[in-house]
Amino acid sequence: MCTWIPYPGGSTVRDLILVHKPNEARRFIEEVKDSRAIALYVIGSTLTSTIPGISVAGASPRATLYTPTLDVEYLVTGKPLSMDVVPVTPEGIPTPAIITRASLKLMDIPYLVVNSGSYIEPRIPHIVLPSRCVGGLINECKGLPKGIANKLFRESESLGKSISRGVDVVIIGESIPGGTTTALGILAGLGYEAWGLVSSSGPRNPHELKEKIVKEGLEVLRKGDVKSDIFGVIECLGDPVHVSIAGLVKGVVSNDAKVILAGGTQMSAVLAILKSLNVKLRNRLVIGTTKWIIRDDTSNIIKLVSMTYDVPIIAFNFDFSRSRYEGLKYYERGYVKEGVGAGGTAIAASVINGVSAEDIIREVHEEYSRLLSMGGLHGEDKTH
Amino acid sequence: MCTWIPYPGGSTVRDLILVHKPNEARRFIEEVKDSRAIALYVIGSTLTSTIPGISVAGASPRATLYTPTLDVEYLVTGKPLSMDVVPVTPEGIPTPAIITRASLKLMDIPYLVVNSGSYIEPRIPHIVLPSRCVGGLINECKGLPKGIANKLFRESESLGKSISRGVDVVIIGESIPGGTTTALGILAGLGYEAWGLVSSSGPRNPHELKEKIVKEGLEVLRKGDVKSDIFGVIECLGDPVHVSIAGLVKGVVSNDAKVILAGGTQMSAVLAILKSLNVKLRNRLVIGTTKWIIRDDTSNIIKLVSMTYDVPIIAFNFDFSRSRYEGLKYYERGYVKEGVGAGGTAIAASVINGVSAEDIIREVHEEYSRLLSMGGLHGEDKTH
Repeated sequence: MCTWIPYPGGSTVRDLILVHKPNEARRFIEEVKDSRAIALYVIGSTLTSTIPGISVAGASPRATLYTPTLDVEYLVTGKPLSMDVVPVTPEGIPTPAIITRASLKLMDIPYLVVNSGSYIEPRIPHIVLPSRCVGGLINECKGLPKGIANKLFRESESLGKSISRGVDVVIIGESIPGGTTTALGILAGLGYEAWGLVSSSGPRNPHELKEKIVKEGLEVLRKGDVKSDIFGVIECLGDPVHVSIAGLVKGVVSNDAKVILAGGTQMSAVLAILKSLNVKLRNRLVIGTTKWIIRDDTSNIIKLVSMTYDVPIIAFNFDFSRSRYEGLKYYERGYVKEGVGAGGTAIAASVINGVSAEDIIREVHEEYSRLLSMGGLHGEDKTH
Repeated sequence: MCTWIPYPGGSTVRDLILVHKPNEARRFIEEVKDSRAIALYVIGSTLTSTIPGISVAGASPRATLYTPTLDVEYLVTGKPLSMDVVPVTPEGIPTPAIITRASLKLMDIPYLVVNSGSYIEPRIPHIVLPSRCVGGLINECKGLPKGIANKLFRESESLGKSISRGVDVVIIGESIPGGTTTALGILAGLGYEAWGLVSSSGPRNPHELKEKIVKEGLEVLRKGDVKSDIFGVIECLGDPVHVSIAGLVKGVVSNDAKVILAGGTQMSAVLAILKSLNVKLRNRLVIGTTKWIIRDDTSNIIKLVSMTYDVPIIAFNFDFSRSRYEGLKYYERGYVKEGVGAGGTAIAASVINGVSAEDIIREVHEEYSRLLSMGGLHGEDKTH
């Protein structure tokens, strides 16, 4: 299924992997060339990420609550503002926002952050959804307070409509630590057999822990008085980000614009939400991700997408194996993999603006080097 | 000075008045045809609007604090959300956001609201500036808390940069009751002889009261320990909106994009801020306003613009004199005149998207009719 096809349109857009539905993916790529694009990065938190062992998208379980805010502050300004440190894993491996920032620097499109429920408000101008809300512990069936999921969906649908007027393609990325666990929760709550299929930001994927947490929440949902329509499922087992992305997609597609869903396995939860709400995608959406997601043998994005909403998957073929930085080499060993729209934004730079993979990878290295020199990674490459 | 020149490019873009610097205005119009545009509406409040007699942009002095929020909720969704009533003057004349909404419906550009300090948060997705802050009473020299003006400027400059990437022209409107008084404050604080020149949302312009309030604040500024650089002046005599618009303009122009500053006399305060910060506009900015502003004999926009930053002024030649609605006819008698980017947005629809004046005016009437039928104007045309 994983067909490795160099893109035929010339040297500047090679290094894309058409992972799933390659013909449709190729048509999408041809249609978005030189088109008008805008990128949105949806952030939010769930207390689920603070359960020890669930997320390594932060130096400690507690630190994961700050990661989305620090990610986007760094993305926009080049440095984190609310705290003096770039988000890293416990091993010191830096956020994939480095890739996103490098890619955005090489293209000329507007981009904005959308706050669907971050633990602290980012100190940059950004879009807020009025019903933004930090998610609770999904093992206690407290994904979101009652009534919030539907509101977030409607608000982001409205945003998707107003922001995509006269725009051809919208790139939508995410930052939510614990997001693969809440994605599993949404999928399981909707009846999908997704156990063992979602990815993880570490090389050891804690499938058993994720399954345990989701099943605890599911049990509360089944015996409780919680409404179990789609929004009830999200309010039990979900989080603020996936439902907001689903709303954005609906709004954008209703304007006949296209979507690059920039993320890994968790985007299948967005697809599942859209499917359960009977939103027609009409060949206007692809998933754009990284090589590390599709090469990950602890998860299966193709299976997840096939069982939810069978859309094309494209991956950007990063290769950091010969990088001079240990922090980037770790990506090749299964750390981080994806996040903050890294893969999809690099794909957009390549297919919309014709930026070469070499340029993106060089810019990632320059960005990493700059972070090291400014001490944003504690003044040294911690991964040496 | 007021040259009435039908635009030569065909019937669909007639009815623009090239008020000031007509040759430069014409060049600007030609350059932005069919270009990529985005519109921003900056909202904020100042307690100064609650001083009786200062503002009629609300049914009562206190109600003016809610007007910006209700304006943009109506603009985006077609109905106010935080309260059940469309902003009106004490006479019941509805907000100029009707014109803005009608114009946006006829063009296909993204638009967003920017909150620089609204009294209540709008219940729509919108951009927030992290340092957003409601302004205080400028007669007490409390325009903004210390340190906020500079922060708002930097934050909106950053927003202007990220939102205008790959965009040709940015339309920037405002909603801030009391805004002509704080604009006068900023101008006076910077040493301009602007007394008697700013406009008003009513036919009787309370120049004496505005001057009294500003002079009280000026006295505090001069004898006090308040820093009197540009940001000190704004923190004494200004408000959150004008400095944020100035920051946006700087960010947009630095990206080589153009600006339609969509507002009346108060935009001269934005120009004064830009001039004092030595921001070069490089022929990239025009003021876009309404006929009612340039025909207003209680104010003088040309004089204000000439003395601050001498840019072209274009006015949209609305004519509601034969309207079937009294509420719109009142506009011809000097009520409301401008606001929420009404004139500049109509101009943008005309010059960028080739929408005819007839279509805009018809759509304004449909919008007004819809508001009447849904009871948003208290169920009847209160102005009969």
